[in-house]
Amino acid sequence: MKTRILSAAVGIVLFIAVVYFMPPQAAIVAISFLCAVAAHEMLGTTGVLRGSKMLWVCCVAAFFVPVATTIDAYYLLPVLYLFTLVIFLFAITHPKQMRFEQIAQSYLGAIVVPYLLSSVLRILVHHGAGKVYVLLPFVAAWCSDTMALVAGMLFGKHKLIPAVSPKKTIEGSLGGLLGSVIGMLIFGFVTGRYFHTQPHYLMLAVAGVVGSAVGQLGDLSLSLIKRNVGIKDYGKIMPGHGGVLDRFDSVLFTAPLFELLLQFINLL
Amino acid sequence: MKTRILSAAVGIVLFIAVVYFMPPQAAIVAISFLCAVAAHEMLGTTGVLRGSKMLWVCCVAAFFVPVATTIDAYYLLPVLYLFTLVIFLFAITHPKQMRFEQIAQSYLGAIVVPYLLSSVLRILVHHGAGKVYVLLPFVAAWCSDTMALVAGMLFGKHKLIPAVSPKKTIEGSLGGLLGSVIGMLIFGFVTGRYFHTQPHYLMLAVAGVVGSAVGQLGDLSLSLIKRNVGIKDYGKIMPGHGGVLDRFDSVLFTAPLFELLLQFINLL
Repeated sequence: MKTRILSAAVGIVLFIAVVYFMPPQAAIVAISFLCAVAAHEMLGTTGVLRGSKMLWVCCVAAFFVPVATTIDAYYLLPVLYLFTLVIFLFAITHPKQMRFEQIAQSYLGAIVVPYLLSSVLRILVHHGAGKVYVLLPFVAAWCSDTMALVAGMLFGKHKLIPAVSPKKTIEGSLGGLLGSVIGMLIFGFVTGRYFHTQPHYLMLAVAGVVGSAVGQLGDLSLSLIKRNVGIKDYGKIMPGHGGVLDRFDSVLFTAPLFELLLQFINLL
Repeated sequence: MKTRILSAAVGIVLFIAVVYFMPPQAAIVAISFLCAVAAHEMLGTTGVLRGSKMLWVCCVAAFFVPVATTIDAYYLLPVLYLFTLVIFLFAITHPKQMRFEQIAQSYLGAIVVPYLLSSVLRILVHHGAGKVYVLLPFVAAWCSDTMALVAGMLFGKHKLIPAVSPKKTIEGSLGGLLGSVIGMLIFGFVTGRYFHTQPHYLMLAVAGVVGSAVGQLGDLSLSLIKRNVGIKDYGKIMPGHGGVLDRFDSVLFTAPLFELLLQFINLL
């Protein structure tokens, strides 16, 4: 528990330093790095490409997805296309190492996951108040995670989806929804008071419910993959928390939600 | 052979009718339909999602990728995100039907292949002379295919990659490169003479070489997947040719090439 809290503290300090005290390039590099690590976890730790040179190609592609899609969504295409050429060139010359499954999984780790995770970067860069907005997916995901844990421990009785995650309960899940709503409302109040935002409380509450729901789905989804390949954690980059995909499993699903919501709705 | 030629003739007549004599909406619907069929071939014919409800969800996603990315590259994100929510929601509630491999393969069939194939549509819609430009990926791919076949039959001696495609020869491959270059030069000459384009012959020749190379890679890549799952053809939508992925295997790789080239270079 001590390691877990210490490691979280280090993470939060790093996050604040990068987002609030350094030029935007620092955030781009940081998120790109996280995406490369996530690709390594999804394709290396799981064993899909373990020991293959293609693992590193996937990490390089994952590194470039955030910067390309932040400059312009159109630039996903050149990254995706180059990746396609390289991966299939490798596959046809190494047909035993690289089968249909591995090819497909490589796209998931190298392109899809980085594209979703880098929503965080696009929120930060593309909005005037990006430095406030960027916290939304984290507030929704982590308030949900925390309250789900607490509610589950206190009231947990009915299993949610035992085949995927044996410890999760319906009571915990509902607690997560509530936690996320409360987190969003407090966040709206604080930013309204101290950062001159105009919180729209009803919208924030709705976004909290939806954010918690997709965040919990993200958590379960990444657990399902771990269960499929028989690993406990995706990595140990954050001692006590596991890998990037363990800590950001919910954020992977809340970040694109808020990127899309912010296009259409005034939350703050 | 008769079926093959007849079927090609029908295809070409349909293509001309849709691209040159109907409003642009017809091309959008036609390409969207081809992408949905391609997804069905990659995920149904191969057996990946055979009999699963998710097969149809993938076809629907594949149908919307062309129109979304043609309106704006940014709209890939909502399609990808909704697809992510649906597929993982299904996966966690059907953990035995939908494993890591099937999830990843679904993304390949529902998002990646349609995104690459719909380059054809984006070339057609986004350029003033789109109706001329749209032929480039087909000229490169099919002149390469045809000349590779002829050169292979006449001079074929040294196997290219027997483990993936036992009949292909190095001589055939070189013939394909030459065929594509000749095709591009003739195409440049004809469009320059009759459609007032300004062909840049050196660039066209280079594009011909690169186009043939990636087209042949596309051909081999789609063959590799067939070989992995043990099928001969992806479908029979075009009698004598097979499925969309059999006939458009090279175009799948030449289309994004030309979409990207046309952003930066004046070919015509």
